[in-house]
Amino acid sequence: MSITKLDLERSFERTKFFRKHTPLLSKTFLDELWSCEVFIKCEQFQDIGAFKIRGASNFALRLSNTEIKSGFVTHSSGNHAQAVAYMAHRLKTKSFIVMPENANKKKVENAIKWGAEVSFCKPTIEDRINTAWDLSEKHNATIIPPFDHEWIVEGQASCVMELLTQQPSIDVIITPLGGGGLLAGSSLAAHYFSPETEVWGAEPANAADGYEGLKKGERITAIDSNTVADGLRTFVGEVPFDIIKTYVNQVYLADEEDILPWMYRLWSETKTLIEPSCAVPFAALHKIRKQLKGKRIAIIVTGGNVDLNQFVSS
Amino acid sequence: MSITKLDLERSFERTKFFRKHTPLLSKTFLDELWSCEVFIKCEQFQDIGAFKIRGASNFALRLSNTEIKSGFVTHSSGNHAQAVAYMAHRLKTKSFIVMPENANKKKVENAIKWGAEVSFCKPTIEDRINTAWDLSEKHNATIIPPFDHEWIVEGQASCVMELLTQQPSIDVIITPLGGGGLLAGSSLAAHYFSPETEVWGAEPANAADGYEGLKKGERITAIDSNTVADGLRTFVGEVPFDIIKTYVNQVYLADEEDILPWMYRLWSETKTLIEPSCAVPFAALHKIRKQLKGKRIAIIVTGGNVDLNQFVSS
Repeated sequence: MSITKLDLERSFERTKFFRKHTPLLSKTFLDELWSCEVFIKCEQFQDIGAFKIRGASNFALRLSNTEIKSGFVTHSSGNHAQAVAYMAHRLKTKSFIVMPENANKKKVENAIKWGAEVSFCKPTIEDRINTAWDLSEKHNATIIPPFDHEWIVEGQASCVMELLTQQPSIDVIITPLGGGGLLAGSSLAAHYFSPETEVWGAEPANAADGYEGLKKGERITAIDSNTVADGLRTFVGEVPFDIIKTYVNQVYLADEEDILPWMYRLWSETKTLIEPSCAVPFAALHKIRKQLKGKRIAIIVTGGNVDLNQFVSS
Repeated sequence: MSITKLDLERSFERTKFFRKHTPLLSKTFLDELWSCEVFIKCEQFQDIGAFKIRGASNFALRLSNTEIKSGFVTHSSGNHAQAVAYMAHRLKTKSFIVMPENANKKKVENAIKWGAEVSFCKPTIEDRINTAWDLSEKHNATIIPPFDHEWIVEGQASCVMELLTQQPSIDVIITPLGGGGLLAGSSLAAHYFSPETEVWGAEPANAADGYEGLKKGERITAIDSNTVADGLRTFVGEVPFDIIKTYVNQVYLADEEDILPWMYRLWSETKTLIEPSCAVPFAALHKIRKQLKGKRIAIIVTGGNVDLNQFVSS
């Protein structure tokens, strides 16, 4: 294990002016529904509407001043792209974001809002990576990866570190599992700062590479991902997988047909907007609610950048 | 004027364990859009999802113990019904809610959730009122009116009193205008506790009885109300009208076609759910944004009990 307790503490301090201390909801309808105490950590209230700023800010601030000056590159089209663009804006440098030519308008706007220079590429993963490499070479700019890097995992750990200051005694923390940066960071934070707390992941049953990989003991990168939880379609990265294997107690699955109804239920009951991916832990926990009785559970809601055109009639 | 500063202070104290001190958002996208400083008071985070608990709790707590024991009646089908049911639940008494037989399922569920006994009537205002009177006589229970009563106005004033503790120096406070309880209470609170603050109302242009009434100097009760802002279809009550006439500086109108786009914009930008009625002040202010330059403005978001079936595709 190369990420130490001190690494997490330094990352927490380093990023403090770039992330928000987000609210923790309690006493929701879930307490009665599941006969337990539920806390909801609301990352949708970050400036970019998602937790991704935690990892991206730690990565960017780990770079030298010369590197920062040359700018950042990424090829994510979602929340990570916004996080990288936001960090470039805050550090008064440039960001170059590669997006597939069929990316939705809102995501492009979100990156441009923070001053990113958006380059379009063919909608294949190869073309995205190649275009990012080209931009990186051309501008001498640093690629900030979305999850598969220790600096990203370190940064994402700040979410649970914050949570533990808001509510120190928690039996279980659960996060969605996509690339694995947040789940890995959360499990490290619990390991160092609240070792009695279990950490669970939640995945769509239709994108269960993490669940299957943990069962087999090795990372899986060949599995179909067909889920409405668009933030969780990606495979778990190598760096996060090693950490998750060691420190995560369990991964639970959400049935595809339960995801959107749980998203709407959370909108309606908490009056906050959450993305489809964030509904996955709720749908997964509801299936095993008998196991939750009497526990204190914290659920991390990762973001609220919902494409309303997709979900709203009008 | 029969509501005194002391009345407001007593009401504020009386209701403190029944209303929540709701958050005040700042630094939103509106600061740049309108070149001013905007604060958003989030009443959707009350336990019942709307500000109505403020007035209903003050009214209920003004009653004698004997009256409380006999229970409460109301014939609102919306947020006020929930507020009355919630107060009965908290005070361990009964509530009888009259709803039209075509009321939507969600609204019925919301009342039943707090233990209300729901009676259905024909969907005419006469039948609603008569059924409420019958229930009141039968159970010797007190009718809690939605807005046209000094105790309700007193209670609603607590929202601006709270706001002024969160942000003491505000140039303009603006609230939606339906029955007028909140606008009247807000204008009294500003009058007594921050006299330099202007108070404005916002109405749908398609339900402009308040706007027209203030222009004429007398209350209007014959005007078509055809707006998606369902909370604002009602006429201003007599008690609120007299206060609004004296203490409200201006009422602005929102064009009907702007209301839903502003609702979705607020969902998307603030990650909180707001009702169509709450979009009205935003849509109205956007039309006069040149006038807002450099000001400090507080907008009261009155609730988040959105009927998602109406707005969400799937």
